[in-house]
Amino acid sequence: MTRYYEDLTVGDTYDTGGYTVSKEEIVEFAEQFDPQPFHVDEAAAEESMFGELVASGLHTLCLSVRLFVTDFVQGGEGVANMGGLGMDDLRWHEPVRPGDTLRVRAEVVEKTPSESRSDRGYVEFHRTVHVDGAEVMSITSHNIVRRAEAEE
Amino acid sequence: MTRYYEDLTVGDTYDTGGYTVSKEEIVEFAEQFDPQPFHVDEAAAEESMFGELVASGLHTLCLSVRLFVTDFVQGGEGVANMGGLGMDDLRWHEPVRPGDTLRVRAEVVEKTPSESRSDRGYVEFHRTVHVDGAEVMSITSHNIVRRAEAEE
Repeated sequence: MTRYYEDLTVGDTYDTGGYTVSKEEIVEFAEQFDPQPFHVDEAAAEESMFGELVASGLHTLCLSVRLFVTDFVQGGEGVANMGGLGMDDLRWHEPVRPGDTLRVRAEVVEKTPSESRSDRGYVEFHRTVHVDGAEVMSITSHNIVRRAEAEE
Repeated sequence: MTRYYEDLTVGDTYDTGGYTVSKEEIVEFAEQFDPQPFHVDEAAAEESMFGELVASGLHTLCLSVRLFVTDFVQGGEGVANMGGLGMDDLRWHEPVRPGDTLRVRAEVVEKTPSESRSDRGYVEFHRTVHVDGAEVMSITSHNIVRRAEAEE
Protein backbone atom coordinates (compact mmCIF):
# COMPACT_ATOMS: atom_id res chain seq x y z
CA MET A 1 0.00 0.00 0.00
CA THR A 2 2.98 2.31 -0.47
CA ARG A 3 2.07 5.74 -1.86
CA TYR A 4 3.75 6.42 -5.18
CA TYR A 5 4.12 9.65 -7.15
CA GLU A 6 0.62 9.17 -8.59
CA ASP A 7 -0.87 8.82 -5.09
CA LEU A 8 0.29 12.23 -3.86
CA THR A 9 -2.03 15.13 -4.68
CA VAL A 10 -1.24 18.84 -4.62
CA GLY A 11 -2.97 20.31 -1.58
CA ASP A 12 -2.80 17.14 0.52
CA THR A 13 -1.43 17.70 4.02
CA TYR A 14 0.09 15.27 6.49
CA ASP A 15 0.64 15.83 10.22
CA THR A 16 3.28 13.96 12.18
CA GLY A 17 3.23 13.05 15.85
CA GLY A 18 5.21 15.05 18.39
CA TYR A 19 8.82 14.83 19.49
CA THR A 20 9.98 16.43 22.73
CA VAL A 21 13.59 17.57 22.76
CA SER A 22 15.61 17.61 26.00
CA LYS A 23 18.33 20.01 27.11
CA GLU A 24 20.82 17.15 27.00
CA GLU A 25 19.99 16.40 23.36
CA ILE A 26 20.22 20.08 22.43
CA VAL A 27 23.71 20.38 23.94
CA GLU A 28 24.89 17.03 22.57
CA PHE A 29 23.75 17.87 19.03
CA ALA A 30 25.31 21.34 19.15
CA GLU A 31 28.62 20.03 20.50
CA GLN A 32 28.77 17.76 17.47
CA PHE A 33 27.53 20.03 14.67
CA ASP A 34 27.03 23.65 15.80
CA PRO A 35 29.12 24.36 18.93
CA GLN A 36 28.25 28.05 19.29
CA PRO A 37 28.06 29.28 22.92
CA PHE A 38 24.28 29.91 22.92
CA HIS A 39 23.67 26.24 22.00
CA VAL A 40 26.12 24.54 24.41
CA ASP A 41 26.61 26.80 27.45
CA GLU A 42 23.72 28.07 29.59
CA ALA A 43 25.67 30.98 31.09
CA ALA A 44 26.87 32.17 27.67
CA ALA A 45 23.35 31.70 26.29
CA GLU A 46 21.97 34.14 28.88
CA GLU A 47 24.32 36.80 27.48
CA SER A 48 23.30 36.06 23.86
CA MET A 49 20.43 37.60 21.87
CA PHE A 50 18.37 34.53 22.82
CA GLY A 51 18.70 35.14 26.57
CA GLU A 52 18.66 31.41 27.27
CA LEU A 53 19.91 28.10 25.89
CA VAL A 54 18.20 27.34 22.57
CA ALA A 55 18.47 24.50 20.08
CA SER A 56 20.63 24.97 17.01
CA GLY A 57 18.34 25.74 14.07
CA LEU A 58 20.10 22.87 12.35
CA HIS A 59 18.90 20.59 15.16
CA THR A 60 15.33 21.79 14.65
CA LEU A 61 15.71 20.97 10.95
CA CYS A 62 17.12 17.50 11.75
CA LEU A 63 14.29 16.71 14.17
CA SER A 64 11.75 17.83 11.57
CA VAL A 65 13.28 15.51 8.98
CA ARG A 66 13.19 12.66 11.49
CA LEU A 67 9.46 13.21 12.05
CA PHE A 68 8.83 13.53 8.29
CA VAL A 69 10.67 10.26 7.62
CA THR A 70 9.42 8.15 10.52
CA ASP A 71 5.80 9.34 10.56
CA PHE A 72 5.15 10.08 6.88
CA VAL A 73 7.68 8.45 4.53
CA GLN A 74 7.84 5.30 6.66
CA GLY A 75 4.61 5.69 8.63
CA GLY A 76 1.19 4.37 7.73
CA GLU A 77 1.10 3.44 4.06
CA GLY A 78 4.55 4.89 3.48
CA VAL A 79 5.86 6.89 0.54
CA ALA A 80 8.13 5.57 -2.24
CA ASN A 81 10.72 8.31 -1.62
CA MET A 82 13.89 7.69 -3.66
CA GLY A 83 15.93 10.62 -2.36
CA GLY A 84 16.12 14.39 -2.30
CA LEU A 85 17.36 17.07 -4.69
CA GLY A 86 17.51 19.91 -2.23
CA MET A 87 15.60 22.32 -0.01
CA ASP A 88 14.62 25.98 -0.25
CA ASP A 89 13.44 28.82 1.93
CA LEU A 90 14.56 27.48 5.31
CA ARG A 91 13.51 30.02 7.94
CA TRP A 92 13.69 29.88 11.72
CA HIS A 93 10.81 31.94 13.08
CA GLU A 94 11.19 31.20 16.79
CA PRO A 95 13.91 29.46 18.81
CA VAL A 96 13.27 25.93 20.11
CA ARG A 97 13.87 25.48 23.83
CA PRO A 98 14.50 22.43 26.05
CA GLY A 99 11.24 20.58 26.68
CA ASP A 100 9.52 21.87 23.53
CA THR A 101 7.44 19.34 21.59
CA LEU A 102 7.85 19.65 17.82
CA ARG A 103 5.24 18.60 15.26
CA VAL A 104 5.55 18.77 11.48
CA ARG A 105 2.89 19.50 8.88
CA ALA A 106 3.83 18.69 5.28
CA GLU A 107 1.79 19.87 2.31
CA VAL A 108 2.23 18.73 -1.28
CA VAL A 109 2.63 22.01 -3.19
CA GLU A 110 3.88 20.90 -6.62
CA LYS A 111 4.40 17.76 -8.70
CA THR A 112 6.57 17.50 -11.83
CA PRO A 113 7.15 14.26 -13.75
CA SER A 114 10.79 13.64 -14.61
CA GLU A 115 11.40 14.38 -18.30
CA SER A 116 14.36 12.04 -18.58
CA ARG A 117 13.38 9.12 -16.32
CA SER A 118 9.97 7.52 -16.58
CA ASP A 119 10.23 5.73 -13.23
CA ARG A 120 10.08 8.87 -11.08
CA GLY A 121 8.66 12.31 -10.45
CA TYR A 122 9.58 15.33 -8.35
CA VAL A 123 7.36 16.33 -5.43
CA GLU A 124 7.69 19.65 -3.63
CA PHE A 125 6.60 19.65 0.01
CA HIS A 126 6.11 22.75 2.14
CA ARG A 127 6.96 21.66 5.66
CA THR A 128 6.26 23.66 8.80
CA VAL A 129 7.37 22.86 12.35
CA HIS A 130 5.08 23.80 15.21
CA VAL A 131 5.52 24.07 18.99
CA ASP A 132 2.26 24.56 20.91
CA GLY A 133 0.59 25.61 17.67
CA ALA A 134 3.15 28.33 16.87
CA GLU A 135 5.21 27.97 13.70
CA VAL A 136 8.91 27.84 14.62
CA MET A 137 10.42 26.77 11.28
CA SER A 138 9.45 26.39 7.65
CA ILE A 139 11.13 24.88 4.60
CA THR A 140 10.35 23.58 1.14
CA SER A 141 11.81 20.23 0.07
CA HIS A 142 12.26 18.73 -3.38
CA ASN A 143 11.83 14.97 -3.20
CA ILE A 144 12.23 12.28 -5.82
CA VAL A 145 9.32 9.81 -5.64
CA ARG A 146 8.97 6.56 -7.56
CA ARG A 147 6.04 6.16 -9.98
CA ALA A 148 3.74 3.18 -9.56
CA GLU A 149 3.83 2.53 -13.29
CA ALA A 150 6.66 3.73 -15.42
CA GLU A 151 5.65 5.17 -18.78
CA GLU A 152 7.53 3.86 -21.75
CA MET B 1 40.65 40.28 17.06
CA THR B 2 37.14 38.99 16.41
CA ARG B 3 35.80 39.91 12.96
CA TYR B 4 32.64 42.00 13.19
CA TYR B 5 30.08 42.93 10.53
CA GLU B 6 32.37 45.76 9.33
CA ASP B 7 35.30 43.37 8.92
CA LEU B 8 33.55 41.09 6.41
CA THR B 9 33.76 42.18 2.78
CA VAL B 10 31.63 41.03 -0.15
CA GLY B 11 33.79 38.75 -2.28
CA ASP B 12 35.93 37.48 0.58
CA THR B 13 36.25 33.69 0.67
CA TYR B 14 37.22 31.37 3.49
CA ASP B 15 38.29 27.74 3.20
CA THR B 16 37.92 25.27 6.05
CA GLY B 17 40.04 22.24 6.79
CA GLY B 18 38.85 18.76 5.88
CA TYR B 19 36.61 16.32 7.75
CA THR B 20 36.56 12.64 6.82
CA VAL B 21 33.27 10.87 7.48
CA SER B 22 33.18 7.16 8.35
CA LYS B 23 30.56 4.55 7.48
CA GLU B 24 29.76 4.20 11.18
CA GLU B 25 29.03 7.93 11.50
CA ILE B 26 26.88 7.89 8.35
CA VAL B 27 24.74 5.06 9.68
CA GLU B 28 24.56 6.45 13.22
CA PHE B 29 23.46 9.89 12.00
CA ALA B 30 20.87 8.43 9.65
CA GLU B 31 19.44 6.12 12.32
CA GLN B 32 18.86 9.19 14.44
CA PHE B 33 17.59 11.73 11.88
CA ASP B 34 16.99 10.18 8.44
CA PRO B 35 16.52 6.42 8.73
CA GLN B 36 15.84 5.70 5.06
CA PRO B 37 17.15 2.32 3.83
CA PHE B 38 19.83 3.75 1.53
CA HIS B 39 21.42 5.56 4.49
CA VAL B 40 21.34 2.78 7.10
CA ASP B 41 21.42 -0.59 5.29
CA GLU B 42 24.16 -1.53 2.81
CA ALA B 43 22.12 -4.27 1.11
CA ALA B 44 19.09 -1.99 0.66
CA ALA B 45 21.39 0.79 -0.55
CA GLU B 46 22.66 -1.43 -3.36
CA GLU B 47 19.07 -1.71 -4.61
CA SER B 48 18.50 2.07 -4.39
CA MET B 49 19.17 4.70 -7.06
CA PHE B 50 22.50 5.36 -5.31
CA GLY B 51 23.74 1.77 -5.76
CA GLU B 52 25.64 1.93 -2.48
CA LEU B 53 25.40 3.31 1.05
CA VAL B 54 25.50 7.12 0.98
CA ALA B 55 25.32 9.80 3.66
CA SER B 56 22.01 11.52 4.28
CA GLY B 57 22.12 14.91 2.58
CA LEU B 58 21.13 16.29 5.96
CA HIS B 59 24.33 14.77 7.39
CA THR B 60 26.39 16.47 4.68
CA LEU B 61 24.72 19.74 5.62
CA CYS B 62 25.43 19.17 9.34
CA LEU B 63 29.10 18.37 8.70
CA SER B 64 29.41 21.50 6.55
CA VAL B 65 27.97 23.62 9.37
CA ARG B 66 30.39 22.03 11.82
CA LEU B 67 33.35 22.98 9.59
CA PHE B 68 31.96 26.50 9.06
CA VAL B 69 31.57 26.99 12.83
CA THR B 70 34.79 25.37 14.06
CA ASP B 71 37.13 26.61 11.33
CA PHE B 72 35.62 29.99 10.42
CA VAL B 73 33.23 31.36 13.09
CA GLN B 74 35.41 30.04 15.92
CA GLY B 75 38.69 29.54 14.03
CA GLY B 76 41.50 32.06 13.63
CA GLU B 77 40.26 35.53 14.47
CA GLY B 78 36.67 34.32 14.80
CA VAL B 79 33.45 35.96 13.67
CA ALA B 80 30.93 37.74 15.93
CA ASN B 81 28.06 35.56 14.69
CA MET B 82 24.89 36.17 16.74
CA GLY B 83 22.67 33.57 15.07
CA GLY B 84 20.99 32.66 11.82
CA LEU B 85 17.79 33.71 10.06
CA GLY B 86 17.64 30.88 7.58
CA MET B 87 19.15 29.23 4.55
CA ASP B 88 18.29 29.11 0.83
CA ASP B 89 19.03 27.07 -2.26
CA LEU B 90 20.30 23.89 -0.59
CA ARG B 91 21.26 21.48 -3.38
CA TRP B 92 22.92 18.09 -3.22
CA HIS B 93 24.96 17.66 -6.39
CA GLU B 94 26.69 14.37 -5.61
CA PRO B 95 26.23 11.80 -2.83
CA VAL B 96 28.80 11.63 -0.02
CA ARG B 97 30.25 8.18 0.61
CA PRO B 98 32.06 6.59 3.56
CA GLY B 99 35.68 7.77 3.69
CA ASP B 100 35.01 11.00 1.79
CA THR B 101 36.80 14.11 3.09
CA LEU B 102 34.60 17.22 3.06
CA ARG B 103 35.90 20.78 2.82
CA VAL B 104 33.82 23.96 2.85
CA ARG B 105 34.39 27.24 1.01
CA ALA B 106 32.32 30.18 2.22
CA GLU B 107 32.03 33.43 0.25
CA VAL B 108 30.50 36.66 1.53
CA VAL B 109 27.94 37.51 -1.17
CA GLU B 110 25.85 40.25 0.45
CA LYS B 111 25.77 42.52 3.50
CA THR B 112 22.75 44.45 4.78
CA PRO B 113 22.74 46.58 7.93
CA SER B 114 19.75 45.94 10.19
CA GLU B 115 17.25 48.80 9.87
CA SER B 116 15.78 48.29 13.32
CA ARG B 117 18.82 47.30 15.43
CA SER B 118 22.02 49.29 15.25
CA ASP B 119 24.12 46.57 16.91
CA ARG B 120 23.94 44.09 14.03
CA GLY B 121 23.91 43.42 10.32
CA TYR B 122 22.91 40.55 8.04
CA VAL B 123 25.57 38.69 6.09
CA GLU B 124 24.77 36.29 3.27
CA PHE B 125 27.30 33.50 2.71
CA HIS B 126 27.38 31.18 -0.29
CA ARG B 127 28.81 27.93 1.03
CA THR B 128 29.98 25.04 -1.11
CA VAL B 129 31.09 21.60 0.06
CA HIS B 130 33.82 19.82 -1.88
CA VAL B 131 35.11 16.25 -1.97
CA ASP B 132 38.36 15.80 -3.93
CA GLY B 133 37.72 19.14 -5.59
CA ALA B 134 34.21 18.24 -6.81
CA GLU B 135 31.27 20.26 -5.49
CA VAL B 136 28.87 17.93 -3.68
CA MET B 137 26.58 20.45 -1.96
CA SER B 138 25.81 24.17 -2.04
CA ILE B 139 23.72 26.48 0.13
CA THR B 140 23.26 30.14 0.96
CA SER B 141 23.02 31.16 4.62
CA HIS B 142 21.69 34.33 6.21
CA ASN B 143 23.68 35.14 9.34
CA ILE B 144 23.27 37.84 11.95
CA VAL B 145 26.65 39.40 12.77
CA ARG B 146 27.39 41.93 15.52
CA ARG B 147 28.72 45.36 14.53
CA ALA B 148 31.96 46.55 16.10
CA GLU B 149 30.43 49.94 16.80
CA ALA B 150 26.72 50.41 17.09
CA GLU B 151 25.32 53.50 15.40
CA GLU B 152 23.01 55.60 17.51
